[in-house]
Formats: sequence, C-alpha cells, structure tokens
Amino acid sequence: MSTKDIYPASRVTLREVGLRDGLQLVKTSPSTEAKQRWIRDEYAAGVRHFEVGSFLPANTFPQFADVRDMIQTVASLPGAHGVALVLNERGANDALESGVAEIASVVSATEAHSQANANRSREAAIANVRRLCELRDASPHKPIVHAAISMALGCSITGDVDPNEVLRLVEKCFEAGVDVVGIADTVGYAGPKQVGDLTWAAVRLAGPKPICVHLHDTRGMGIANASAALDAGARILDGSLGGLGGCPFAPGATGNVVFEDLVFLCESKGFATGIDIDELVAVRQILREQMPNEPLYGGLARAGLPRATAARAA
Amino acid sequence: MSTKDIYPASRVTLREVGLRDGLQLVKTSPSTEAKQRWIRDEYAAGVRHFEVGSFLPANTFPQFADVRDMIQTVASLPGAHGVALVLNERGANDALESGVAEIASVVSATEAHSQANANRSREAAIANVRRLCELRDASPHKPIVHAAISMALGCSITGDVDPNEVLRLVEKCFEAGVDVVGIADTVGYAGPKQVGDLTWAAVRLAGPKPICVHLHDTRGMGIANASAALDAGARILDGSLGGLGGCPFAPGATGNVVFEDLVFLCESKGFATGIDIDELVAVRQILREQMPNEPLYGGLARAGLPRATAARAA
Repeated sequence: MSTKDIYPASRVTLREVGLRDGLQLVKTSPSTEAKQRWIRDEYAAGVRHFEVGSFLPANTFPQFADVRDMIQTVASLPGAHGVALVLNERGANDALESGVAEIASVVSATEAHSQANANRSREAAIANVRRLCELRDASPHKPIVHAAISMALGCSITGDVDPNEVLRLVEKCFEAGVDVVGIADTVGYAGPKQVGDLTWAAVRLAGPKPICVHLHDTRGMGIANASAALDAGARILDGSLGGLGGCPFAPGATGNVVFEDLVFLCESKGFATGIDIDELVAVRQILREQMPNEPLYGGLARAGLPRATAARAA
Repeated sequence: MSTKDIYPASRVTLREVGLRDGLQLVKTSPSTEAKQRWIRDEYAAGVRHFEVGSFLPANTFPQFADVRDMIQTVASLPGAHGVALVLNERGANDALESGVAEIASVVSATEAHSQANANRSREAAIANVRRLCELRDASPHKPIVHAAISMALGCSITGDVDPNEVLRLVEKCFEAGVDVVGIADTVGYAGPKQVGDLTWAAVRLAGPKPICVHLHDTRGMGIANASAALDAGARILDGSLGGLGGCPFAPGATGNVVFEDLVFLCESKGFATGIDIDELVAVRQILREQMPNEPLYGGLARAGLPRATAARAA
C-alpha cells in the first residue's frame, strides 16, 4: 500500500492515538485483551487508523510491552492501518521486524527541548529519521515512515517557537525520505490562528505529501485548532478516545483532542469520516472499566448527537 | 452612552453571562454578597460587560430576586455595563425602572419552540420586542435593547433550523428598533462552519449595528464556534466563568462557552480583551465555595497560561 492509499488527499483521515499517546503516562493500563477490544470496537465504529504503541524498553513502559499483539490485531482487520513509535535504531529494527504498517519517530522543534528530552541535537534526530528511511528502503514490506515535529507550536522550555524553524525541519524530514510529517502541539500552547498559519505553510511546503496535525486540548483550544487545521488544508488529524493522554512536559495537560468530538467537528464541516459517533462513544466503557481513575473528556459523550443529526442518520 | 460606545466595532467585547444564564438552572445559587464579589473581582480582572439577572417572578427564580442589587453593583463600577433579561411587558417596566443599561429579550427561531416555550408565536415575540423598544424610547435613560434569537443554530424540537428564517427574524428585530441582535446556539448543536456562515450573513445584514454571538459548549464545539464567529466578523461574544450554566431544553448540556478560554482564544487571535486570565481564573474560587456541587470546566484553569504567554506578559 502506498502512502496515497493509506492517506488519500481527497478525504479526512482521523487517527486514534489513544493506545499510544493516550497511555504514555497512565498509572494503570488496560489489559492486552481490553486494548484489543478497544481496537476492534472502534474498527466496528468505522475507525481505520490506530497508533498502537511504542518500541521502548518494556521495563520502563510496560504498557507497550504487548505492542506486537496490537500490531497483529490491527493487521487482522481489513483496511485497518497500524502505527508504532520508535525513538532509536534498535526500536526501528524491532518495528521493521514486527511488520507494522507505519513507523513514527520524533524530532523536537527546538534545540533546547531536543537536548533536554532526547539528549541529542535536532540534527542528530534528523539523522536518526534518515537512518530509519534507509532501513525501510532495505526492508521487504517498506512501511510508511512518519516523522513528528514535537513542540512545533510552542515549547515547554523556550516558550515561543519560530515557525520558520519548524518548516525547515519539515523540509529536512521530507528530504530524508519521510512519507508523512506530523506537526504536534505537544503542550497545547497554540490557538487556531497559529495552528492555521503553520498548517497552511506546511501543507504548501509538503506539496503532494501528507501533513498530519497532532493537537492537545490542554487549554481547551483542541477542537478550534483542529477546525483551523482543516481549513488550512490538513487532511490527517490525531485524537484519542475521551481525550485520554497527557504530556510529561505539560503539567496539568489533559490529553489529545477528544476523538469523538473531532469526528463531530469533521462531519459538521462536511468531511465524511465513515465513523459512527454513537458506536465510538460506547467504546469509552472499556476505558472506564480498565482505568476507572483516568478522567475522560468530551462533549458528545456528555450530550449525545443533536436531534437534527440523529434524525438525518436514522 | 450610545450602542457604539458600549460595543465599539473596532474591538472584541466579551460578556460574562454567568450571573444570569449560568445561574438559570442551578440548584443552589451564590449569595447576593458573593455575586457582588464575583462582579467586582471580574471587573478588577478587566471584565466590563455583565448579564446580571432576569426580571422574572422571584418565587420561580429566587436566584434573580436580587437583580436590582446586581444592577447597582455594576453601575457603581466606572465603565462597567449591566444587562438584564425580561420576557414580558411587566418585566420590561421593572427593568426600565431599575435603570439597567441594557435590556434583553428573547425570540425563538422556530415557531414550534416559540409556542412550546413561551406559549406565543414568533410574531407575538417580535411584537413584544417592538413594545420594549417603544417603552425604551419613552424612558428617560433609554437603555440599549437587545433581542436574542434562541435556537438560531439548531432547535431542541425541530432539529435543523433554516438560516434564512433566522436572518428574517434578525431583520425584523432591527426593524422593531432593537440595538443589538443576538444569535444563540441555545442547545449547542452547531459546528464552526454553520456558526461562521450564519454569523457572516447576520453581520452583513446588520450593517453598522452589532451582532452578539451566544454559544454553548454542549458538544465541545464552543471555542471552535467562537473562533468561527470572530472570523465571520462578530465582535460581541458571550461566555460564563467556568462554563457555568445549562439549558432546560438540552439535557446534559454543559453551559456557556468557558469565559477564561474565550479570553485566551481572542488574545491568541490578536484581539485584545483587556482581561487578565490569571485574575479571571482566580474568581472561580467564589463559584467553588458557593456552589460546590456545580461542575466547572475550562482549559486555562486546568493548565494555566503557556510559558510563552506568561513570559510576554511579565
């Protein structure tokens, strides 16, 4: 499958990142069986893109020890697409061996955050991405390679981030052979104007290659920022069921954009997602059972579909 | 003071409606003294526009029995502007007598809701607004008259609402002598495209007269909708501290747009509000003490200002 088949430019793709980003910081994680049900039930609701875990040391991140099971679960569902995160060459080799359809890596937008978080320069992070692309090219199944620019809209260390530096990193990632570049508001600093402006520039810079916009709802701007990203031409957006997730660099941060609300937003703007909101909301029950102490967010879960939408769907 | 002085077209006006819309449905209401502190503390944070209560029968709505005290409190603060709601001629006379600076009334967007909610036709509601304007013209202090079109973006009875019917009502209100027309997504049905489209048309129809956009965050679209309303030219937006409030026609509805987050949105889009977000967030303590069982919402209260914004403000 080519990148264009997985992420067609003609429609919006919504990616469930709750199984990875959503579980990055939780104290108790769902069982493997529950995570598989989460994937299958969302698949039944129409979701096709899942970030399922990381290839990280299992003693530090036990919640991702079963990442290969998750990859298999997604691969067993026709038309479903799995993504796993790697941070170094060892992880990259493990991911390639697993057969996962997409491998994601991260480059910090600021030198200060790159050094503080990954103990390497941004140049070294780009070299890491380039190496990942080489390994992909040498692999039999050639997964999609995704590079996410973290802190692209504000940095927990430097505060403001120069958008031109972000765009230079986007360009370098594509030059390194990356298939999809992500722009991440990791700490939820941005408002819709900033998101729209950066997305607009990145989409034009990328040309036919896709840009993914990854937003956190830290300051309540998540859905407004997603709306601005869509207006600016982004066609891949990340979210997590119930807004699960947080960020180690953002105290008080409350997770990714709420997936259910993101679906409602897209449909309200005329972008068909193929996802049934009522069925999607029902999947939250798995999270409530497995992680009773994790707060879940979201307007659709609270209030249900409007009468008009419900009537049209019936 | 003319309408243009109260609502200058050159800047954004944010109105705190928590003291009226926010308290419409609560089981326990803050004391008069606490509401006065709420007003004074928000005033100190930079808020200037307050919807303070309704002239409704005090036995049905005891939370508004002290509306005259609230009007006095606002009137005592230089540059502050108070609004009170009325639903009939008796309320209008009481409001005129109170000296409140702005009197608001409501017209339902759909005939079905007008009949079910107010037991009158929309035509009768418009006649009521016209009578209010006549009473204003005959009064010594001539308060601003505001007519809000409820259910303008979706109706709890009919579902979809024809935007052309809403625009016709906007026109009729202005013809009746209204100074400001409000467009209300009373049950939080709309997404940003719908809000943007209707606001755009209403702002152009209104010409130099101001349009107020009143949004509820029922389905998590509140801030995205506010952003769309600003993009479409609206310069008056309502919100309530902590997203307080609900709606009798929207079970599970969770209040107005969060005021603090609305301030952040405006500032992030380059609209100066004159409001200090940290000081505004601190006022929530009054609500927590006075209404410990009311849920409060909001991203800024949770996560604080981003490092960049905080650094620039220092």
